Amino acid sequence: MKSKICEILDIEFPLLAFSHCKDVVAQVSKAGGMGVLGAVGMTPEILEQELNWIDQNVDGKPYGLDLLVPNNFVGKEGSVDPKDLAEMIPQEYRDFRADVLDKYEIESDGLREQTQDYSNWGANMKEDGATEMLQIGFDHGVKLYANALGVPPKWMLDLCKKNNVPVAALVGKKEHAVKQVEAGVDILVVSGTEGGGHCGSVSTMVLVPEVHRAIQPIKDVPILAAGGICTGEQMAGAMAMGASGAWCASVFLTTSEAETSEVVKEKMLHASSDQTVRSRSRTGKHSRQLKSDWTDAWESPDAPDPLPMPLQTMVSEPALAKIDKASDVGHEGAKKLATYWVGQGIGLVNEKLTAGQTVQKFKEEFIDAYERLNSFME
Amino acid sequence: MKSKICEILDIEFPLLAFSHCKDVVAQVSKAGGMGVLGAVGMTPEILEQELNWIDQNVDGKPYGLDLLVPNNFVGKEGSVDPKDLAEMIPQEYRDFRADVLDKYEIESDGLREQTQDYSNWGANMKEDGATEMLQIGFDHGVKLYANALGVPPKWMLDLCKKNNVPVAALVGKKEHAVKQVEAGVDILVVSGTEGGGHCGSVSTMVLVPEVHRAIQPIKDVPILAAGGICTGEQMAGAMAMGASGAWCASVFLTTSEAETSEVVKEKMLHASSDQTVRSRSRTGKHSRQLKSDWTDAWESPDAPDPLPMPLQTMVSEPALAKIDKASDVGHEGAKKLATYWVGQGIGLVNEKLTAGQTVQKFKEEFIDAYERLNSFME
Repeated sequence: MKSKICEILDIEFPLLAFSHCKDVVAQVSKAGGMGVLGAVGMTPEILEQELNWIDQNVDGKPYGLDLLVPNNFVGKEGSVDPKDLAEMIPQEYRDFRADVLDKYEIESDGLREQTQDYSNWGANMKEDGATEMLQIGFDHGVKLYANALGVPPKWMLDLCKKNNVPVAALVGKKEHAVKQVEAGVDILVVSGTEGGGHCGSVSTMVLVPEVHRAIQPIKDVPILAAGGICTGEQMAGAMAMGASGAWCASVFLTTSEAETSEVVKEKMLHASSDQTVRSRSRTGKHSRQLKSDWTDAWESPDAPDPLPMPLQTMVSEPALAKIDKASDVGHEGAKKLATYWVGQGIGLVNEKLTAGQTVQKFKEEFIDAYERLNSFME
Repeated sequence: MKSKICEILDIEFPLLAFSHCKDVVAQVSKAGGMGVLGAVGMTPEILEQELNWIDQNVDGKPYGLDLLVPNNFVGKEGSVDPKDLAEMIPQEYRDFRADVLDKYEIESDGLREQTQDYSNWGANMKEDGATEMLQIGFDHGVKLYANALGVPPKWMLDLCKKNNVPVAALVGKKEHAVKQVEAGVDILVVSGTEGGGHCGSVSTMVLVPEVHRAIQPIKDVPILAAGGICTGEQMAGAMAMGASGAWCASVFLTTSEAETSEVVKEKMLHASSDQTVRSRSRTGKHSRQLKSDWTDAWESPDAPDPLPMPLQTMVSEPALAKIDKASDVGHEGAKKLATYWVGQGIGLVNEKLTAGQTVQKFKEEFIDAYERLNSFME
């Protein structure tokens, strides 16, 4: 396809798949799109293993890496040791978390120690940790870096430029897009409020053309439309409105390769578009998740107001890990609580496919949409 | 253009403009689209006058009429006299309203009597009132009826069928669309959460293809995409995804003909897409409005929880009428409070055009988007 995204990334079809699963990353790249591995939360050792596996399974096709390097978060300045972060969580939050688990008859012991483990997530966001992660990627010939939160720090942009790796940045509002372009990012991932994970308040339908218009006087940086896109028709629609490709995640969560728990996969395949919630309860910033008894509990009036990053992650993730583990072996309470990040587009995903089949389906639906639009002009 | 919407409505370009302004309705129809007059809140006498004016100014082009005939609301069963509705509003709401006005130095006297006047809005929603309004439309040769809230009652659908007038219905979720098609509506207005006025939680980007797929096994009822659409590129994008045309309102609010107050027009022309709020504070149901000090006040923790329809309208509208009147003559406090329903797409509307120029702009942008999508396939 003739798109600036295809030129920059040297791919055939401008569909990017964000995934925490190495298998999805490799399959999407092999099918002509580009897989982007979400590496936040990984240790350098794990990242090294994952990239080795991808290199052996991607047939030489290009793939990307996604980190989360925000400009502001608790513990950023190095003044807080990761070990002390756990102590910053008020008891009320630990109690609320334990109460929810108790109510659904899930053991809440050991959570304190696991909370500590998740402070590593905070370490990766700092310059030292992130530089180490970036270097591992460079060594493996990663072809794209994406930063999912705010303007990437200058040191990150400079380092990627030096290594000839384009940088993509996620934006949720026009003003942020302008800042990103001025800072020098190479690709904008314009993500609407309907998207899974971190999201703003403006919809993809509005944000894509709004950003497209706003950046033209500065630089015509290519746009990947994100948020709610789970079909090739939507990808074509977004590209008619100003995007040069699409950035998807939710549609790959239900693929047979994905690491998503089977319980959550089944929930997602049966979910309508209105069964997600945009909430600060998982990370401290607004992120969209599949509605479940867990998200309902955190949306209830007696739930404590979410903590800033990465503290809220340290509250929620250990509990959600327990929930996933229990739901995998059929625990009824855990199945009710099980959730994961997902966008409204999940309402359009109703059959389990492989990641490769998903890319193929996008291509076919893209052609359908193209022909549909042409038919109005005959 | 070759679209089912053009066939059914006998128009050239499948762009429908919802407006409370007769001038906008006439201009859009004359420019090749179709104007749809929002008649809720009008008395039969006013409606008669408005339609006479349109008939004299529309050059024989077709136009539509929009009513609000929900299946459930306070006073529906005829058990509540419109006069008694005002008495159902708790004093707390009257006090809160007066306090906001006082804080901005706007006289709050006379509000009680005006609150009474707005009970007429409730009268039009009942069968007697709505039938009278429909008949006036039939007598004027109205070519489309739209019902902006829920499945139209069977008596309404039957009456329109008898008079050979197609019925369009607004839907905000897949399940409602299926019900509407089963009830026999002729056109679905599929409206995303980013839209102005009443709206659901699902975005246009997701809802249009989701509804399009869901209704195929029942009946291929044509879809007008609504919610956030203020440009021809977005219209083309939505049509690539399954729509057969677009239903717009916000983009016409800033046109030179529109009845919108000058203060609000200026605010809208300068607003970004994130300067709207989805709130129950204006009508009792979720509707999207331009953010202002008025909407901020109702979103604050000390604001009372909005009342059901039409009671909340009776609380808000008299105050907003005072605010509009004062802001028109330059009252600084009133200018801060002034607001109106509007969608996120207003971030894409930055210049004041006539309604006719707006339709022309849509046509040009549609062609641009069509060519853009084609360029990817070369």
